Amino acid sequence: MKKMMIGAEVFIEPGQTPEEIDLWFKRLKECGMTITRIRMFENYMHQPDGSWNFELFDTAFKAGEKYGVKIFANLFPSTEFTDVGGFKFPKSEENLQQISDYIRHLVNHFKDFSSLYGWVPINEPGSGELPDDDFSRTAMAEWRKSEITNEYNSQGFNTLDFSKERFLLHHNTWFLSWLTDQIHLHHPNSIIHVNNHAIFQHVAEYDFPKWRNFLTSLGGSAHVSWHFGYFSRQQYAVAMSANAEILRSGAGDIPWLMTELQGGNNTYSSFAPMCPTKEEIAQWLWITIGVGSEGSIFWCLNPRRSGFEAGEWAMLDYQDHPSDRMLAAAAVINTINEHTALFEQSTVLDAGIHILYSRESLWIEKALQIKGTMYEGREQGGCMKSALAWFEALTELGVHASFKEIGEFDFSKDNYETQTIVLAHQISLPSKYWDRLKSFVKLGGKLIAEGLTAYYDENAYTLMGRGFPFRDLFGAAVKEFKVVKNLFAIKLNTPETELPAHLWRGTLELESATAAGYFKGEEDAEAEVIASRNIYGKGEVFWLPSLIGLGSGISGNYTQLTKLIREELKISLYHQPLLFAKHQPHMVMKTLVISNGYLTIIVNKSGSVKNIVLKTNVLLHPELLFANRSGKLSSAKDILIHAEETMVIKWINH
Amino acid sequence: MKKMMIGAEVFIEPGQTPEEIDLWFKRLKECGMTITRIRMFENYMHQPDGSWNFELFDTAFKAGEKYGVKIFANLFPSTEFTDVGGFKFPKSEENLQQISDYIRHLVNHFKDFSSLYGWVPINEPGSGELPDDDFSRTAMAEWRKSEITNEYNSQGFNTLDFSKERFLLHHNTWFLSWLTDQIHLHHPNSIIHVNNHAIFQHVAEYDFPKWRNFLTSLGGSAHVSWHFGYFSRQQYAVAMSANAEILRSGAGDIPWLMTELQGGNNTYSSFAPMCPTKEEIAQWLWITIGVGSEGSIFWCLNPRRSGFEAGEWAMLDYQDHPSDRMLAAAAVINTINEHTALFEQSTVLDAGIHILYSRESLWIEKALQIKGTMYEGREQGGCMKSALAWFEALTELGVHASFKEIGEFDFSKDNYETQTIVLAHQISLPSKYWDRLKSFVKLGGKLIAEGLTAYYDENAYTLMGRGFPFRDLFGAAVKEFKVVKNLFAIKLNTPETELPAHLWRGTLELESATAAGYFKGEEDAEAEVIASRNIYGKGEVFWLPSLIGLGSGISGNYTQLTKLIREELKISLYHQPLLFAKHQPHMVMKTLVISNGYLTIIVNKSGSVKNIVLKTNVLLHPELLFANRSGKLSSAKDILIHAEETMVIKWINH
Amino acid sequence: MKKMMIGAEVFIEPGQTPEEIDLWFKRLKECGMTITRIRMFENYMHQPDGSWNFELFDTAFKAGEKYGVKIFANLFPSTEFTDVGGFKFPKSEENLQQISDYIRHLVNHFKDFSSLYGWVPINEPGSGELPDDDFSRTAMAEWRKSEITNEYNSQGFNTLDFSKERFLLHHNTWFLSWLTDQIHLHHPNSIIHVNNHAIFQHVAEYDFPKWRNFLTSLGGSAHVSWHFGYFSRQQYAVAMSANAEILRSGAGDIPWLMTELQGGNNTYSSFAPMCPTKEEIAQWLWITIGVGSEGSIFWCLNPRRSGFEAGEWAMLDYQDHPSDRMLAAAAVINTINEHTALFEQSTVLDAGIHILYSRESLWIEKALQIKGTMYEGREQGGCMKSALAWFEALTELGVHASFKEIGEFDFSKDNYETQTIVLAHQISLPSKYWDRLKSFVKLGGKLIAEGLTAYYDENAYTLMGRGFPFRDLFGAAVKEFKVVKNLFAIKLNTPETELPAHLWRGTLELESATAAGYFKGEEDAEAEVIASRNIYGKGEVFWLPSLIGLGSGISGNYTQLTKLIREELKISLYHQPLLFAKHQPHMVMKTLVISNGYLTIIVNKSGSVKNIVLKTNVLLHPELLFANRSGKLSSAKDILIHAEETMVIKWINH
Repeated sequence: MKKMMIGAEVFIEPGQTPEEIDLWFKRLKECGMTITRIRMFENYMHQPDGSWNFELFDTAFKAGEKYGVKIFANLFPSTEFTDVGGFKFPKSEENLQQISDYIRHLVNHFKDFSSLYGWVPINEPGSGELPDDDFSRTAMAEWRKSEITNEYNSQGFNTLDFSKERFLLHHNTWFLSWLTDQIHLHHPNSIIHVNNHAIFQHVAEYDFPKWRNFLTSLGGSAHVSWHFGYFSRQQYAVAMSANAEILRSGAGDIPWLMTELQGGNNTYSSFAPMCPTKEEIAQWLWITIGVGSEGSIFWCLNPRRSGFEAGEWAMLDYQDHPSDRMLAAAAVINTINEHTALFEQSTVLDAGIHILYSRESLWIEKALQIKGTMYEGREQGGCMKSALAWFEALTELGVHASFKEIGEFDFSKDNYETQTIVLAHQISLPSKYWDRLKSFVKLGGKLIAEGLTAYYDENAYTLMGRGFPFRDLFGAAVKEFKVVKNLFAIKLNTPETELPAHLWRGTLELESATAAGYFKGEEDAEAEVIASRNIYGKGEVFWLPSLIGLGSGISGNYTQLTKLIREELKISLYHQPLLFAKHQPHMVMKTLVISNGYLTIIVNKSGSVKNIVLKTNVLLHPELLFANRSGKLSSAKDILIHAEETMVIKWINH
Repeated sequence: MKKMMIGAEVFIEPGQTPEEIDLWFKRLKECGMTITRIRMFENYMHQPDGSWNFELFDTAFKAGEKYGVKIFANLFPSTEFTDVGGFKFPKSEENLQQISDYIRHLVNHFKDFSSLYGWVPINEPGSGELPDDDFSRTAMAEWRKSEITNEYNSQGFNTLDFSKERFLLHHNTWFLSWLTDQIHLHHPNSIIHVNNHAIFQHVAEYDFPKWRNFLTSLGGSAHVSWHFGYFSRQQYAVAMSANAEILRSGAGDIPWLMTELQGGNNTYSSFAPMCPTKEEIAQWLWITIGVGSEGSIFWCLNPRRSGFEAGEWAMLDYQDHPSDRMLAAAAVINTINEHTALFEQSTVLDAGIHILYSRESLWIEKALQIKGTMYEGREQGGCMKSALAWFEALTELGVHASFKEIGEFDFSKDNYETQTIVLAHQISLPSKYWDRLKSFVKLGGKLIAEGLTAYYDENAYTLMGRGFPFRDLFGAAVKEFKVVKNLFAIKLNTPETELPAHLWRGTLELESATAAGYFKGEEDAEAEVIASRNIYGKGEVFWLPSLIGLGSGISGNYTQLTKLIREELKISLYHQPLLFAKHQPHMVMKTLVISNGYLTIIVNKSGSVKNIVLKTNVLLHPELLFANRSGKLSSAKDILIHAEETMVIKWINH
Repeated sequence: MKKMMIGAEVFIEPGQTPEEIDLWFKRLKECGMTITRIRMFENYMHQPDGSWNFELFDTAFKAGEKYGVKIFANLFPSTEFTDVGGFKFPKSEENLQQISDYIRHLVNHFKDFSSLYGWVPINEPGSGELPDDDFSRTAMAEWRKSEITNEYNSQGFNTLDFSKERFLLHHNTWFLSWLTDQIHLHHPNSIIHVNNHAIFQHVAEYDFPKWRNFLTSLGGSAHVSWHFGYFSRQQYAVAMSANAEILRSGAGDIPWLMTELQGGNNTYSSFAPMCPTKEEIAQWLWITIGVGSEGSIFWCLNPRRSGFEAGEWAMLDYQDHPSDRMLAAAAVINTINEHTALFEQSTVLDAGIHILYSRESLWIEKALQIKGTMYEGREQGGCMKSALAWFEALTELGVHASFKEIGEFDFSKDNYETQTIVLAHQISLPSKYWDRLKSFVKLGGKLIAEGLTAYYDENAYTLMGRGFPFRDLFGAAVKEFKVVKNLFAIKLNTPETELPAHLWRGTLELESATAAGYFKGEEDAEAEVIASRNIYGKGEVFWLPSLIGLGSGISGNYTQLTKLIREELKISLYHQPLLFAKHQPHMVMKTLVISNGYLTIIVNKSGSVKNIVLKTNVLLHPELLFANRSGKLSSAKDILIHAEETMVIKWINH
């Protein structure tokens, strides 16, 4: 059972008065917030003479005790004032020793505050790059010695070297684990939580399954203006949903919460400056809850006053009054508080539909970049955006799909009937997953592969050609991929659709598979198969080696792709308790399971008021728990939801 | 009393013949030009064996004597042939010694030519960056020791370090002063003049008030194709006017002249290649005169022949005949010569309307840049462009506003009734000006503040929030700034207008101030104050914390902003002797005061012929001194001016 | 007499099986291909213990013997796996010694295979840049000592230093020559062939006439997706034609062939990804044949499997079946095989129309680049694109013009009547060509000069102004160039046309020349001459100092330029055996001479079916040799050609 925690980070820095620190905790309490996070700047504790002065932070921890607000203490070892996010890796052995000393002083001082909730060993690990210093080089050399050599050797071909990427994965994990050990040395069994960031760009350097060994809970920073560059503002809700699903999948059996959520306005910071509306605040909060989090912490309550981000991001206004965004969060908290047990006992619906991406796809895509004519499909982000497009299409059908790194998928079950895996333009399928994918289908699973999925193994060796390992599973092999143009149509016979596709058209040579579509029409002398369907064991593979996900995403229209999904995922969809009765563009639905029914979060991003009909597979009786723009419903067939509105509905079995 | 000097730079380089050098001075004389400037290249005097050969330059100085043309000798110490503009700082102690030797040889040789007018110690000081060498590092370390620490400490908060920026300001001044001393060692009391450049980008590294201590006159380079990137070609006239006003303000009590004005065509050099029309030449010349200059020197008479800029920029054609541009300059000179006393005795009208910018705004804006979605308001240039937009709007009303660094404004008077200061998106207001601004208003001044004015102090510490120093002066405080979008509307009640605004909307919490406008309408439950008016002492503050200047500029339409100006600056405008009777888009007017009346320069950039009516506060009788496209007038109520035409009119009091 | 060879490169790398290598050679044979090229990777022969293992490559050479396919062995000394194209220069003396050793082992091992055709000493020499290492620096210092100083000194002016560019030219030649010597040491008199690449960008570093001393034949890589960035896809045919003409001119009396032609699809490699259609494959093959090549080799038959370019570029599909492109090539080969003697005896028609460019124009253009507002005429590529625009315009008239570096033109004849030289925006005319150009005209040639042709000498010293060396030849001198805008109209009196021009308008001062056009009309007081015609000796110069070639190219319409060409090149055109009767936009025609007639290659890139009429100066009887979209003809006046079709026609004199 999870415990729900919603809060906002108090930013502590010298110059602040005890009175205002007290006021900020008071404001948290007034809005029902029970958790905060504080950056424990070594710079503001460790004096030039070597002594330690914790006074400023003591004030905050005491205020926490006074107002009943728990604190995540976020380690922040000494760094430059201009280092906005903190450094990601130790710079030297000496630096490592300094960090260890800092932890000793910090943890021993604060561990006894009753307001201390737990520790965040580093802010936003990972940075896209390994630092170029001796410490990293030495660590990499050590790691190389111990790396277990893969027996698979790409059929004896020479290959690109991805050991730097593998090491970065290892090094991030090592440092988090080392920090945890240091904390536990002084504060055994204390709570450890960490927040990754820029997930769609950085996910390939996070080894979440390994992190579960030392984390109490997993977290993330999801700042739309810094991190959601693959999306338009209208898509931020679905993006938040995907970000949350990545964290849920990463967390596995441990809890997760959204450690940082954008709380306020941007002036000079961020890539795509914005100020969230109060409706967006509710959307993001409810979506993270709908994806099973324990809650979220806004960044931040009060703005830092100086330097980068001065006066930005905050939930309080400059006069320390709650903004409309803070009041919107309070309204969500109120609803949760009215139904605490319901939310705490809820679990995420396992819809049995899984969009998988592979780390190696992201590594290879990045390694092969050439500057030239811009096509999203072959730029960095092409693989991730392809998977996200499927996630968005499924979302518009009301499906609560999971979004997982392929290594996080549980391939150990003995029955996958009703389960579907989507591999959308996952250019690299590492060898260790080949048999697992076959087994998944053999045991009844449905596999959808599109785009240039399986183009490479883990070494950027192309699997197309002699020795294609999925020849029996797919019942076909690729003849050619050909650049067509940014957007073109793919016409299928079964189901009859004409899908927008992007960049390349793939053609197939069939073996056991049957044709699902032709280029130029089946009757044409130059007809070529462009999609196939193959029965394998108890399951089936649908293969369409063109980028229909990204094509739909670029065209901004999922009408055709959802039509295809309704056909190809028929079995999986049949088992969903709640779905949109028809394709609902720009509508998001998340589903939680409760003891005798469901909770649904519905968000309307369509820009106008909508009447929604839900298709249910049992009779469900609704109760409206939350609606922030006067949405109404009488039954699953009659839901009125306004533009930007979020509705939370409890459904009880009868 | 100033003396009028118009000329063009003669470019001297080896390979030229005495005959052509003579011909160039003859051409200057034929067109009435009385001044030139010559780059005194050490490279072309100082021989490899250490000896000096001045012959090439002697030829020029003798030609100057022969044709009665005075010469500004522009120091140009030894540098690479590819160094187009010359270096900006000494590179080492040895280099400093070399420069000193060069000055000794140069000055002693040329000081006795009767054609020598004065010395330009360096071409276009300043470069946006401090060089990364030992000399600069040592100089900075020395300066640090002597810098007087500001007692103001941003309420004890940690802050960004702007000492590099402050040192650059100091270092530029130091080097110019050192060069002047070196020249005066050998030629006591000689005339010293210096030309800054790319003023809208580099102004924050020029400490003009300190320069007045050693300069005889201040100058500038205003090359539209290199320096006016913030403007369209249609705006070059108003840009020239703003550039000139910056120099006039910088010069204070010493004279100023435009040292370099683009004279000809671009091939490979410049950012925005162009060739001035003959009408533009007249516009620029008259505008610099209208801003009180002693005249201008075109860059250049004859083109350099080799390397960068070969065959470019010249007023003579390749056959050494005067271009249409040269003839246009001659026509202006003729007019001045016909009325020498009139122009020499004229002074710039003090309109009492002052657009102020702060150096620190430019420093902070630059320090906080993040690459991302482009919005002009948060990019480098946002502060300067905001101030320029107000200047342009006032220009279109016929107001001769001043444009000043805040430190150049005279805060020492005891009465500011009828005076107005505009602070347009000046994000940084350094602490030393806080009391001065209060005093300005208390003593009757009108203060207009818009955009994110006062967001920071001088250390990039935000003033928004606890301790806001203008709470009593403005009678209000900001609640929030929120990103809206590139352009949106700001609706005011008093005066009733709907202004285009850019990027952020600011909302206010009122104390003594009264509301001047609401977001969502006064009656709305969610109404928020977006503009305020506060009586303070004898004066008033109008505060609109959204970017209405830049918004108007981006929308390309000052209709609404001029409407606001007519209301808010009513008192200041009432005291203007001459104004456009109505808003005149793309029209420029500059006003000079003569003994019993005024001189006005009117430029029509609207693209079509216009009938203009002027509003005058006394009866004025006109006399047309110059019109280059057959413009005509009978009275202030009846001025006919053609597209691109410049008219110069003398108005006599009756 | 040349021998025709068409083939595709077999890519050999470890991991391949003997069976598949055998299959690939079988596929070559099945499609009539008789030549291949193989990269002889030292990395895959030279073992870590220093021994040599040639087995993998032996397999290929034996398969060549088995299927009668000849092999160009392409040297590929040891380099990184990620080095896609191979290095261009030795990195050190030690590296040079290693290369020498490699050559010894390689050549001695493979020279006795009967399948060995010849050697390619380096893949794609040249890279745009000199490497920054000691070897290059030492080589440059040595070269400097021996460089013969030009007596011409730009009238004594200081100038930019282009010795780096001259050295690069020398260094490329030296290395190729050294490699050849090393090969010949072990395999005397063997065939040597080399392929340059990215010709429109890199041509200025290739000294083709000097290469003739050691090459058996010249080659090139013409990959549209890497190298044809100056062109749209519709223009790739004419671009291929220009690329081929540059090689033909470079080859002079030795044969040439296209060493690499894009054979297949792109995924991550290339700047402008594409997959050739089968029609494009035919167009490119026929065009290279129409420009007199011995044939072409596609890159590549089978794709490399790993790293950069994995699975790309190939003529076989992933299942080792011939693609439609491979079959299209086979159809061309069939046609040639049916008429072997005809093609082998054919020679390129000398149309007497020569578009010349100068290396120095490209060097100077590059040296003077400034980032700013983009105008193609002053960016890198402006000179080349101007020349190419004339080539394209002439192509649309059916003219088989030559395209030559000015140093490749034969100025030694004693009669140039009927000959025309076009100098389109060739900004630099080196001094050594001044007298040759005069002599060309004096002896009856027609010279067309446009744009900023002759703006500079070879040292970036501008010739405009005193001492203009073409004053007598052109009978005029430039008064001014003035930036106008991206596109504007140039109106001529004789012939009456209104040409689109780009960026600058040049005006002339006439001496012996007569006016051919005025700016503002002849009658206007401000009329200025913008084009002139001058009789000089037996010839004539037409001078239009504005960019009408590039202007036409940018406007995408050659209607007016071809109108001008028809008038100004009247005499040259009169002597053409075959021309389009009227301007045919986007149509390409190449003409070969056979014993009693001609072969024409016609390609229709217009996008629709066309009826073409040819103008012939004798009666010619046609025979259709090839048409791949059912084109038909009955006479020169009646040719039906479909979109994208290529037709090859034999014309016999009667």
